[in-house]
Amino acid sequence: MIKKRIYLFGDGTAEGKTDMKNLLGGKGANLAEMNLVGVPVPPGFTITTEVCSEYIELGEEKAKELVIDDLKKGIQNIEKIMGTKFGDDENPCLVSVRSGARVSMPGMMDTVLNLGLNDDAVIGLAKKTDNERFAWDSYRRFVQMYGDVVLGMKPESKDANDPFEEIIESVKEKKEIYYDTELDVDDLKELVTKFKAAIKRSTGHNFPEDPWEQLWGAIGAVFGSWENERAIYYRKIHNIPNDWGTAVNVQAMVYGNMGENSATGVAFTRDAATGENIFNGEYLINAQGEDVVAGIRTPHQITLEGSRRWAKSSDISEEERKKQFISLEEYMPNIYQELSEIEEKLEDHYRDMQDLEFTIQNEKLWLLQTRTGKRTGTAMVKMAMDMLDEKMIDEKTALNRVEPNRLDELLHPIFDLEALKNTNVITKGLPASPGAASGQIVFFADDAEKASANDKQVILVRIETSPEDLKGMNVSNGILTARGGMTSHAAVVARGMGKCCVSGAGALKIDYREKTLSVGDKVYREGDWISLNGSTGEIYEGKVDTKSPELSGDFGKLMELCEKYTKMYVRTNADTPKDSLVARKFGAKGIGLCRTEHMFFEGNRIKAVREMILAEDEKGRRKALDKLLPMQRSDFEEIFEAMKGFPVTVRFLDPPLHEFVPHDETGQQEMAEEMGIPVKEIKERVAALDEFNPMLGHRGCRLGNTYPEITEMQTRAIIEAAINLKKKGIDTIPEIMIPLIGTAEEFDMQKNIVEKTIAVVFKEKDDKIQYKIGTMIEIPRAALTADIIAKTAEFFSFGTNDLTQMTFGYSRDDAGKFLPIYLDKGILKHDPFQILDQEGVGQLVEMGTKRGRGTNPNLKVGICGEHGGEPSSVKFCHKIGMDYVSCSPYRVPIARLAAAQAAVADK
Amino acid sequence: MIKKRIYLFGDGTAEGKTDMKNLLGGKGANLAEMNLVGVPVPPGFTITTEVCSEYIELGEEKAKELVIDDLKKGIQNIEKIMGTKFGDDENPCLVSVRSGARVSMPGMMDTVLNLGLNDDAVIGLAKKTDNERFAWDSYRRFVQMYGDVVLGMKPESKDANDPFEEIIESVKEKKEIYYDTELDVDDLKELVTKFKAAIKRSTGHNFPEDPWEQLWGAIGAVFGSWENERAIYYRKIHNIPNDWGTAVNVQAMVYGNMGENSATGVAFTRDAATGENIFNGEYLINAQGEDVVAGIRTPHQITLEGSRRWAKSSDISEEERKKQFISLEEYMPNIYQELSEIEEKLEDHYRDMQDLEFTIQNEKLWLLQTRTGKRTGTAMVKMAMDMLDEKMIDEKTALNRVEPNRLDELLHPIFDLEALKNTNVITKGLPASPGAASGQIVFFADDAEKASANDKQVILVRIETSPEDLKGMNVSNGILTARGGMTSHAAVVARGMGKCCVSGAGALKIDYREKTLSVGDKVYREGDWISLNGSTGEIYEGKVDTKSPELSGDFGKLMELCEKYTKMYVRTNADTPKDSLVARKFGAKGIGLCRTEHMFFEGNRIKAVREMILAEDEKGRRKALDKLLPMQRSDFEEIFEAMKGFPVTVRFLDPPLHEFVPHDETGQQEMAEEMGIPVKEIKERVAALDEFNPMLGHRGCRLGNTYPEITEMQTRAIIEAAINLKKKGIDTIPEIMIPLIGTAEEFDMQKNIVEKTIAVVFKEKDDKIQYKIGTMIEIPRAALTADIIAKTAEFFSFGTNDLTQMTFGYSRDDAGKFLPIYLDKGILKHDPFQILDQEGVGQLVEMGTKRGRGTNPNLKVGICGEHGGEPSSVKFCHKIGMDYVSCSPYRVPIARLAAAQAAVADK
Repeated sequence: MIKKRIYLFGDGTAEGKTDMKNLLGGKGANLAEMNLVGVPVPPGFTITTEVCSEYIELGEEKAKELVIDDLKKGIQNIEKIMGTKFGDDENPCLVSVRSGARVSMPGMMDTVLNLGLNDDAVIGLAKKTDNERFAWDSYRRFVQMYGDVVLGMKPESKDANDPFEEIIESVKEKKEIYYDTELDVDDLKELVTKFKAAIKRSTGHNFPEDPWEQLWGAIGAVFGSWENERAIYYRKIHNIPNDWGTAVNVQAMVYGNMGENSATGVAFTRDAATGENIFNGEYLINAQGEDVVAGIRTPHQITLEGSRRWAKSSDISEEERKKQFISLEEYMPNIYQELSEIEEKLEDHYRDMQDLEFTIQNEKLWLLQTRTGKRTGTAMVKMAMDMLDEKMIDEKTALNRVEPNRLDELLHPIFDLEALKNTNVITKGLPASPGAASGQIVFFADDAEKASANDKQVILVRIETSPEDLKGMNVSNGILTARGGMTSHAAVVARGMGKCCVSGAGALKIDYREKTLSVGDKVYREGDWISLNGSTGEIYEGKVDTKSPELSGDFGKLMELCEKYTKMYVRTNADTPKDSLVARKFGAKGIGLCRTEHMFFEGNRIKAVREMILAEDEKGRRKALDKLLPMQRSDFEEIFEAMKGFPVTVRFLDPPLHEFVPHDETGQQEMAEEMGIPVKEIKERVAALDEFNPMLGHRGCRLGNTYPEITEMQTRAIIEAAINLKKKGIDTIPEIMIPLIGTAEEFDMQKNIVEKTIAVVFKEKDDKIQYKIGTMIEIPRAALTADIIAKTAEFFSFGTNDLTQMTFGYSRDDAGKFLPIYLDKGILKHDPFQILDQEGVGQLVEMGTKRGRGTNPNLKVGICGEHGGEPSSVKFCHKIGMDYVSCSPYRVPIARLAAAQAAVADK
Repeated sequence: MIKKRIYLFGDGTAEGKTDMKNLLGGKGANLAEMNLVGVPVPPGFTITTEVCSEYIELGEEKAKELVIDDLKKGIQNIEKIMGTKFGDDENPCLVSVRSGARVSMPGMMDTVLNLGLNDDAVIGLAKKTDNERFAWDSYRRFVQMYGDVVLGMKPESKDANDPFEEIIESVKEKKEIYYDTELDVDDLKELVTKFKAAIKRSTGHNFPEDPWEQLWGAIGAVFGSWENERAIYYRKIHNIPNDWGTAVNVQAMVYGNMGENSATGVAFTRDAATGENIFNGEYLINAQGEDVVAGIRTPHQITLEGSRRWAKSSDISEEERKKQFISLEEYMPNIYQELSEIEEKLEDHYRDMQDLEFTIQNEKLWLLQTRTGKRTGTAMVKMAMDMLDEKMIDEKTALNRVEPNRLDELLHPIFDLEALKNTNVITKGLPASPGAASGQIVFFADDAEKASANDKQVILVRIETSPEDLKGMNVSNGILTARGGMTSHAAVVARGMGKCCVSGAGALKIDYREKTLSVGDKVYREGDWISLNGSTGEIYEGKVDTKSPELSGDFGKLMELCEKYTKMYVRTNADTPKDSLVARKFGAKGIGLCRTEHMFFEGNRIKAVREMILAEDEKGRRKALDKLLPMQRSDFEEIFEAMKGFPVTVRFLDPPLHEFVPHDETGQQEMAEEMGIPVKEIKERVAALDEFNPMLGHRGCRLGNTYPEITEMQTRAIIEAAINLKKKGIDTIPEIMIPLIGTAEEFDMQKNIVEKTIAVVFKEKDDKIQYKIGTMIEIPRAALTADIIAKTAEFFSFGTNDLTQMTFGYSRDDAGKFLPIYLDKGILKHDPFQILDQEGVGQLVEMGTKRGRGTNPNLKVGICGEHGGEPSSVKFCHKIGMDYVSCSPYRVPIARLAAAQAAVADK
């Protein structure tokens, strides 16, 4: 049995409080709380979620009987506090009726404003506001909204017009006017009459003049909207139980447009852009809330200091400022003082930066809403650290105040927002690697290198990139591709380089021969300037100025906090000394994935690589490998030195060999000359390397097990490099990682080759070093048989890119054809290449970890797929007990924060 | 403490028996048993496996001390029975020393023959056999064998010659002779002398003349060979524990070459080729065992009837037969009688067809070995059914007597063995689809059709086949491909058609332009005859006669037995009414996989399919789908009718769309005209369909979820077909199967489209039918989340082809580059596309089944991958509780037998 159906609030008292969200909904609980804090809130009452269930269960009539007396008490309370009267023609009591569920369901349910207006009350409102047009406009809006929401006056079909808008159009046509604002009082009166007639025609009933009937109708509509199709779908997606129901909030309307002593505005307790602890905000005199947002009138600053600063930057004289854009602090010093005290009170109460909405009605300040304010990444970090310093929050709270992904904004260049304003968006792709970049279009990696050598700023534009483009990518300001997803080659490499990239911009047509890029009819040529926003995927025409990031002391403090609380450590995926140093700076404790194949494209070595691949037999391969050995060794020496003191996990050659060989005539000719064999033979060998599904082909340890000499060479390069550095007094801990293991036998065979080679090198060098041999777990079968593999492996590193590909049966390079549609239709909630699929792939990761540790309790377990830098995935890794995650250098701070948050959440 | 080290046997008694295999090894236990059955076996004794362990543990000296007294007793027993004496120069006792582990390890361990020969005994042997050359040849062989096995006289390196062979060569060179048989007694004596000198030089010791020393040396060598590298490796592969050890059998030598009253032969208790219950075999007078096998002398038949039949078929007169090829029955009637009784006794004892080796030494019959005889598939079935009739074995035993895979031989044509004799093998590929076929080479499916229309017999030779080749494959006698494995397109389709196929013959070079097929220097042209053995993978030059199979009543009886015992039922994978009927005949209870895409290539419909794929938008696709609908519907009507009364599982469109579109200029031109758009546009659309990894691309339910109109059309075709047949009084139970499901949402979305379409069709037709909607489980993620998917799916069918691809990360089409090497190196025990990988993929199958049934106890579970017709995989399916397996029509009997055997094994 329901004990209490309605909770009153207003005038500094409230029957509810903040922890009654289940009963009062989020909004209702908050309105009560604001009253208790002592903030002036328009009075009202909340009808509980229990009444919603009752309404659905017992039906409208029965529910009304049960609640009607309480409703009357609620309205009386509002009338008392506001000094108004429901339906009065002098001082009418007008209310809003809004839904309010336990959790916010934005836009899902219905709202009715200005309720209480009728043919009498509209006269009262006109008098009170001394604005007849406003009163009638409010009235026609109310009739329209009520007709739509409560009386179900919807368009007849998808293609049909809204019945009320049709009436408005006919009136405007008759008067030959274009804008709604041109409608005068008589027009508005005509509209109200016509609206009511339409309602009568359509529903068979008169529009209810009785405010009580209006009120009950609106409440019923809000309760009913809990069961509308949109809301049910939303709940299904967000796992919100159907039996929660919604509460209804009935609250007095207040108006900021009742004359020169009325106003409306928004304010922030700190600076949402920089994080500085400065009260700020904007307001407009004699205006409604939407006027501030709409941008038709330029809003004024609230504080004097803010107002002066704004005027200076806008080149406005002090005189003009005072005349046209006076601050609230000057215009209404008392109200400003009250507001200023309230913002402090609220921030202190909620212990976070608040975003306030207020209205001043006839010199009376009303707070309409307070909520935690949105902020930039930079502000997020600064506020958290400041509030920690101010002892407003504790360390764990400070850690949780920063969304890991938002750290990106601190690490990458961003566009100057002003500069963006006059810029055309060409199209949008995927936000593959964050940051902002401008440059001249080039279509080939070679051209990028040439242009860069001439100090030109370029954007490399490709249908897709391949490992051959690495150097060109490295010298470009940004990379744009027409195909490929968030984990395409371009995206992965760009993130590794910390370089801005937009991938998979499907609307682009690229013509390599003509060197043009077109979208629809618009054509861009080599040399034209374009700009990329790698954080949003937007592609702009022309050059747009960017701003470089600077790492603040607050960032450092945050990282120290992470260090204090985290249980997992973070490594980086890095293939060059430069990347290693960047990652070290961000706090990486070693390399979790060093891909040897990227080195193969550097300088002259690609020729030797090609010679190795195209060799006719083992002898030929060994000859070419001998050429590669010193180059790989020196690569490793450089990387080991950059990472000295920390372990470096080196993955053996992974991609299919055909990725390395030349597919063009010139390149094939070159190799034919190099190797002294006919081009025809080169062509044949290149063709023989072709595969139907290279992702599932002859790659990873399958190469090392069919051509053991490659494994030998790579082992030798690693171990010799480590011993050479040891002689220089530099500590190294190489960890050899065998890729693409599917069976324990594959691993054992590779381990055997590695160990034999190491024994030989130790003997030759008469020295020893520490090392580890482990494997990537990236094939489903490896996760399933992890217990067997772990018997001989010293570490596991989950390669969740490939594991996701094979567990889903999706090719990263091809999924662009259906993934966007799947995300759109809700078949997938996230792109599994961006956010680890915990439900499916996660099972294999957890299984692999558990089974591996089951037979080898000392097994070190980490992750080195792209997910290693994605916060929710990092938290999953923590949950299943991994030792570390590894990610691209620029995501190291993000991973560190996510790991620390996961650890904090444990306790 | 070891109680008894040596077990004697001989003269109809034995201390051991057949169930003492752990102690006596397989051979020792068998020798004992033969004595107990009353079969004359050369006497001897078995040194137990415990002594082997003792030998390894305590060392040679100590072990010898412990066993020497027993050894003496053993030799005395032989001497007594044989009337010989160890080392005697009149009647020497000669023995063999052989290993004998618990399980056979063929060729892994050492053997010494003719032991006991020395400078005295050789004289005795010469006298006794009246054949000095034989005696000295035996002696030099003994010294050589003893030197090699016991004294370690091996070649110095891989490339070096055998030291004894070098001596033989030098003697032959000196005498200017070529063959060993040209060596005379003096030469042999010289060899013995030289061998002994070499032994002395190499080991520092004289060759042991003392037979006791010889004996102990040989025993030690056999024990020692348990620990040799080969044997250890063999045990590792076959999971044989190292501590089992081997027994040693010492047995009197008997000789069939002691003159005209000696002989040697092999015999079978029934006909190994036909299975008929006819005693048969071959023998040679005055010969050794190896002479019968070597084929230098033509062996005689044992029975008179056999002899006469043989003479007739060899065109030999009765006179000549009696003179040259007299039967044992005529030549030694008493011995024949004895042998004849023994064979009956042995078959009766072992209750299976026996393969006997016997030697007659001076009119005394000795049985050297009896074992279960190998037999053809036909014989296997006949013998099992005959013995069941004869009440020799029970039903379950009869079921287990037939190896399921061998049923293939009853179902497919085979080569006439005589015809094969003079035929050259060109090369060998994979035995992709069993049977035998001859035909003229064609290189294009079109040419195959044309040739077939002119009544020519053709073999279609392709680098690989694609769905476009289907019609050409269908009219060819056999298919040969240079690439692709056992589950390549060619292999799968051919097995489905029951057509002979050899795939992945890597040595073949195919030049489509020149229309040639070459292997090394040899070139074959279009029109040349070749022949394929799809059961062995051999490819023959020219035309070879084949024999058609006839299904015997025994086969029917076997199938009835299967029906009686099986728990799972068997369905078929069939896409045509013809295949359906074949499978029905073999006992399939419905179709488990009907692939709709194969129908798309038939007749004119490929044009409509291409139009659908190349359409610009949904409207264009619907237009083309409308053309396809009546064709698909009539396909289904035919198949449903062929399978009437049984369920038919129809899988929706599965392969990536690019497989259907024309990649050649002509085809593209044709489509451009058909659709009235420029060729350039066709080319662009074809190019847009290209994928990097089509196996992981836009296919399966991903097509149906992005183009729901395809799902609608296929649903409509199925349901309309079923309703049309219902009106004709034909019962159908369509089961709609959604392919490539990875998430429950994917399935639910497809199910929703299917159900909506069905509701529309039911309404239109004003009729209803029963149907089911289920899914393939072929993506690892589907198995992992089977509990969720099963909530809405009515059946699961494991598509283990794709599941294997994704669980291993192997592409069937590309694995040819490393799979053979993996199998060779022992990284994989089997090709996982042929034999279900129970360790890895099997986990997912079991998990999927359990989890699915966990949320949906009524879930019907089956398998429709290639493994559904592979016996060990079928048994696995039984073990995890599947309801059915589905396989290609010609494998239905195999699957039925395997399923029945699995059920029998349960009890």
